[in-house]
Amino acid sequence: MKTIRTVLFGVGAMGSLIARFLFQKEGVEIVGAIDAAQDKVGRTLDEVLGLKQRVEVAVSNDADATLSKTKPNIVVHATSSHLEDVYPQLASIVKHGANVVSTCEELSYPCSSAPQLAKKLDALAKKHHATILGTGINPGFLMDTLVITLTSVCQTIDRIQATRVIDAATRRLPFQKKIGAGLSEREFREAIEKKSITGHVGLEQSISMIASALAWKLDRIEVNVVEAVIAKKAVRSEAIKVEVGESAGLRQVAKGFRGNKNVIILDFQAYIGAEEEFDSITIAGVPCINQKITPCVHGDVGTVAMIANSIPKVINAAPGLVSMKDLPVPSAATEDMVKYIGEF
Amino acid sequence: MKTIRTVLFGVGAMGSLIARFLFQKEGVEIVGAIDAAQDKVGRTLDEVLGLKQRVEVAVSNDADATLSKTKPNIVVHATSSHLEDVYPQLASIVKHGANVVSTCEELSYPCSSAPQLAKKLDALAKKHHATILGTGINPGFLMDTLVITLTSVCQTIDRIQATRVIDAATRRLPFQKKIGAGLSEREFREAIEKKSITGHVGLEQSISMIASALAWKLDRIEVNVVEAVIAKKAVRSEAIKVEVGESAGLRQVAKGFRGNKNVIILDFQAYIGAEEEFDSITIAGVPCINQKITPCVHGDVGTVAMIANSIPKVINAAPGLVSMKDLPVPSAATEDMVKYIGEF
Repeated sequence: MKTIRTVLFGVGAMGSLIARFLFQKEGVEIVGAIDAAQDKVGRTLDEVLGLKQRVEVAVSNDADATLSKTKPNIVVHATSSHLEDVYPQLASIVKHGANVVSTCEELSYPCSSAPQLAKKLDALAKKHHATILGTGINPGFLMDTLVITLTSVCQTIDRIQATRVIDAATRRLPFQKKIGAGLSEREFREAIEKKSITGHVGLEQSISMIASALAWKLDRIEVNVVEAVIAKKAVRSEAIKVEVGESAGLRQVAKGFRGNKNVIILDFQAYIGAEEEFDSITIAGVPCINQKITPCVHGDVGTVAMIANSIPKVINAAPGLVSMKDLPVPSAATEDMVKYIGEF
Repeated sequence: MKTIRTVLFGVGAMGSLIARFLFQKEGVEIVGAIDAAQDKVGRTLDEVLGLKQRVEVAVSNDADATLSKTKPNIVVHATSSHLEDVYPQLASIVKHGANVVSTCEELSYPCSSAPQLAKKLDALAKKHHATILGTGINPGFLMDTLVITLTSVCQTIDRIQATRVIDAATRRLPFQKKIGAGLSEREFREAIEKKSITGHVGLEQSISMIASALAWKLDRIEVNVVEAVIAKKAVRSEAIKVEVGESAGLRQVAKGFRGNKNVIILDFQAYIGAEEEFDSITIAGVPCINQKITPCVHGDVGTVAMIANSIPKVINAAPGLVSMKDLPVPSAATEDMVKYIGEF
């Protein structure tokens, strides 16, 4: 029986979630795993992922050797948010002719934010007949692909706004800490300066993807500094207590301009005690569109789905660096994964 | 300056709305018009469409002559909801190597409901290097493409439901009459029997398109008979008064089954006095998705947009009979239409 030979590149927090899902997936065969972490190298995947069934695949820190030996149809890449960090990794994968789907936020639409690297990756991928996609729930879907999809019912568009509000109390503790929940205002500012709080990566890429799909030439993109969401009443999660006047989390806003007109606004909010969790998209145009997903799509759960569901699309696509807007309409791959693939 | 040479095939109610929009559209040049109606043939488009500016293009009932002479890049086709009616028209267009975007509801996904005709059309289109797409707001987007798009955030799916509720009082009078607003229960039943009320065309195609995107093999699709929505209190539009116990409009439900499990439900409702107008999509799965567009997207306005916005996608696509799910993510074409097209 044919299967999709899959190598995991990165089995950290997000990579492990994806890996656990793919292990249950019919039609997917995990044939290799790559990670640099010394506490993982040499151990088998069942140990590293905490799986009950025995898995003979061991984690290697030698990407070239793993890829040469396993010849995967797809590499599921989850190591870093930043394109400069992942560029050498992607290049090494692609040189083996393997397709890549990656969680790297800056890879979701690098054509505007990193045109040189994007061009080099595209050329390299084409040369080796491989396809590269960066995706996830955000960037990758909620604030770009879904926005673009909804514009298709519009005759004219004046302004687009997408807002994501997450109640961080429902998320894992590392996420709550990453957004600065429970810090004083001063501690929050210091954390920003020390870059221990970095905000959400991908807003610039999402704006660029929307603008490109609409053939809108933007004059500038502003990504505002991360602000603390200051608690107006005491709120708490299981692990963190936020007093009045402390930070409950963060908010980050990015804007795309044509001339002086603010035509795209993305508003990302994640804090403990949000009264409603939602993902909303508003398009001012003909017609006006008011769309809302309630509650918001869970980030980890949705990213695992987006990555897994993109595997057949990436394998079916023509070689090169692609983005969600260039691929066919995204869709779930709930059945045997092989059913979604043409020839491979 | 390059333009997209466009022929209108059908300038009835919907065709005229699309034509009026395309006349304002930068990059689109209307080079011909075809219609069989004797009161239109021979008249210029400014007269037929009620445009202020003079348009030298006259309506012809000779499709072959018009297409030979004008050599269009795209034919905007809007004549009938039924594939059997439009098949000869589509064949005649495609034989001239022209691409087609059509409002024909049954053309939105004919592979399951009319596999023979679909195969013939696909072969003919490929032979003549033309692309054919059936689309619109519904079928074409709200109850199929958008549903498919939202499934991409899901790891598993148990059941999908899409509901569209239209307050017919806000729509044009012919639409209010078409849905049987103001009829007694007996008159409504008679109208169904005489087929003067036919219900919504496309629910079966939308279910097939969703199932195909998910690689779900359905055991059957049930399209329920059209039911009257009986007014529980007196309601009215500008032109029609509906008393208690009379029909305010119609409701039609269609279901897709795997075994005995109802996995896809589409629920279409259009009646005078609907308390809320919306388009909603609910996916029971991991994660559960509750999405809502409020108010619902206006049918005519949205269909004009979907048809116009699909023109570049169709011109850019590989030859053959295509469906929305096979094309890249849909998007608005708000700028000069030529900007969205590769080589043509």
